[in-house]
Amino acid sequence: MEALALRRGEETATVIEKPRPEPGQGEAVVRTLRVGIDGTDHEILAGEHGGFPEGDDHLVIGHEAVGVVEDANGTAFSAGDVVVPTVRRPPNGTNEYFERGEPDVAPPGAYHERGIEGAHGYAAEYFTSPEQFLVEIPAGLAPLGFLVEPISISEKALELAHSSRSTFDWQPESVLVLGNGSLGLQTLAMLADSVDRLYCLGRRDRPDPTLDIVDEIGATYVDSRETPVPEIPERYEPMDLVFEATGYARHGIESAHALAHNGVAALLGVPRSATFEVDGGEFHERMVLGNRALVGSVNSNRRHFQRAVDSLSSLPAWFTESLVTGVYDLGEFERAFDDDDSTIKTALELSRR
Amino acid sequence: MEALALRRGEETATVIEKPRPEPGQGEAVVRTLRVGIDGTDHEILAGEHGGFPEGDDHLVIGHEAVGVVEDANGTAFSAGDVVVPTVRRPPNGTNEYFERGEPDVAPPGAYHERGIEGAHGYAAEYFTSPEQFLVEIPAGLAPLGFLVEPISISEKALELAHSSRSTFDWQPESVLVLGNGSLGLQTLAMLADSVDRLYCLGRRDRPDPTLDIVDEIGATYVDSRETPVPEIPERYEPMDLVFEATGYARHGIESAHALAHNGVAALLGVPRSATFEVDGGEFHERMVLGNRALVGSVNSNRRHFQRAVDSLSSLPAWFTESLVTGVYDLGEFERAFDDDDSTIKTALELSRR
Repeated sequence: MEALALRRGEETATVIEKPRPEPGQGEAVVRTLRVGIDGTDHEILAGEHGGFPEGDDHLVIGHEAVGVVEDANGTAFSAGDVVVPTVRRPPNGTNEYFERGEPDVAPPGAYHERGIEGAHGYAAEYFTSPEQFLVEIPAGLAPLGFLVEPISISEKALELAHSSRSTFDWQPESVLVLGNGSLGLQTLAMLADSVDRLYCLGRRDRPDPTLDIVDEIGATYVDSRETPVPEIPERYEPMDLVFEATGYARHGIESAHALAHNGVAALLGVPRSATFEVDGGEFHERMVLGNRALVGSVNSNRRHFQRAVDSLSSLPAWFTESLVTGVYDLGEFERAFDDDDSTIKTALELSRR
Repeated sequence: MEALALRRGEETATVIEKPRPEPGQGEAVVRTLRVGIDGTDHEILAGEHGGFPEGDDHLVIGHEAVGVVEDANGTAFSAGDVVVPTVRRPPNGTNEYFERGEPDVAPPGAYHERGIEGAHGYAAEYFTSPEQFLVEIPAGLAPLGFLVEPISISEKALELAHSSRSTFDWQPESVLVLGNGSLGLQTLAMLADSVDRLYCLGRRDRPDPTLDIVDEIGATYVDSRETPVPEIPERYEPMDLVFEATGYARHGIESAHALAHNGVAALLGVPRSATFEVDGGEFHERMVLGNRALVGSVNSNRRHFQRAVDSLSSLPAWFTESLVTGVYDLGEFERAFDDDDSTIKTALELSRR
């Protein structure tokens, strides 16, 4: 079968031939429909993130997948079921985190990530997976099923944010999303029905397709070149919730300065080391006197995938049509890695239902 | 009656005469037994914190109190009940935070703090209070009842920390308390039965009475002059929970660097503005990739007071005897404000049961 892989020593993906995987006991065979591409995939190709499976000379990429069960192989699935695989796998059989259904809180060494680190991904015509790592989705969602994994990332971060405020009456009325990439935009869309006032911070000029989406959602665009994060409360309003999806190093600490009393910032970006001056006393005082919180969030578990299916089915068609700017066959995979301002979210199409 | 007050324009407390307060409807009259003194009281006298009641030329200090109901005045209490008052009061009748029983999350302007800001405190022979702001405690706890308020501060912070980790299996096995003042020591003692490995950071030389308590609790003393907070994971171990009770500006951000995977730092200190260099990228990355959290916590509500009563009754006698280094009559109130290394926690005694 064909697969898209990064080979050791190379900095670009290549379509390779490899044997169709044989299922182990308790594993279903899944025919891949689509695989989403995100910033992590770009980082893997650039050699900034990820790692090859032990003993292999290549890594099949792709961790945002949707497929059709081809061979249920004794699992609870039936051939034809549309499924989305989770990403983390136990390196050696199992461990306590996987047994509790919480691989997303496993520490380094206690997991591989398919398509990212230590295990092959889903950008192949077929993949196999233990039953417990597959989440069934409605067949009608199949074309967009590759969005379940990224949406599950937002679900987990929002869950952590809410749980951190669960000891008192709290419902966010003002929400600031830092970042107008696909993660930021999907989060805005997920919150549009329940939040009064949405804001999205970016640094683009109009006309821009992401800002068109911000407008259509009804969110207020905040240009970070005009209004740095700490000035947002004065210029706009203090935020009950900040959702950081930029990976810009200053935004971790600065997000506390955008928060309203009792507010929480969910941090999702992964910046590089960057040293700068901060008023750490003011940061600390704001955190304490305002009962403010910062919660970091990485990965997601099955519960978040299941919630993401519901969220995905609630998103309006205009939104997903605007968000997904391209779906490409393996023969034109390079286009899925385009990085220009007209590209928001792309996917590879491995097969059709 | 006699009261201990700060008069406008002065920087030291004075024993004054003022009329015994008359209870309003739904208010009990309480005869004050003891009032604890803490860092906030020192700051009030130094003019760094707090504010006078509107139109008054003095502020009766004291916010950590225990008393005996003298006149139930139609409330659910009986004369002789031992009670502890909460601190925050609504400035104008009531507001949504007080109605929900959550004055601790009220923003500035929505509360006064008795003995601190906008309302007279408890360092007087008698005080009145609406029934809903009095928490009954067992009579046997009366001599230590002034510890209920400070313990409630720890209870709230621990509750926030736990709730922020409540979406996954989490029980702290390693806990680092930053600070060997009375707040830090009481928190160590509260956690001693449930936490495997306790650490306490300070900057004192032995022999020292606070370090004797750290030892007796079974906690490991970490000297911050030898081991800065970010080096603690390597020198000792990563911490599931950090409880910051120093108010040292660097500790807000640095506490993230002491945390284990999925750990949380509760911040309670109130530092002043202080600008310094940090690796904000590393801070941010650690927060995200390790699902780490920081939660600021201020004040406490009735639920935390009630839990504090249970915690206080569980503390061993040797601990409270070591913690409370002095209880002084109003005539020798200056001694309650001693600030030397042999003083840990002091109280004023206004009357005896």
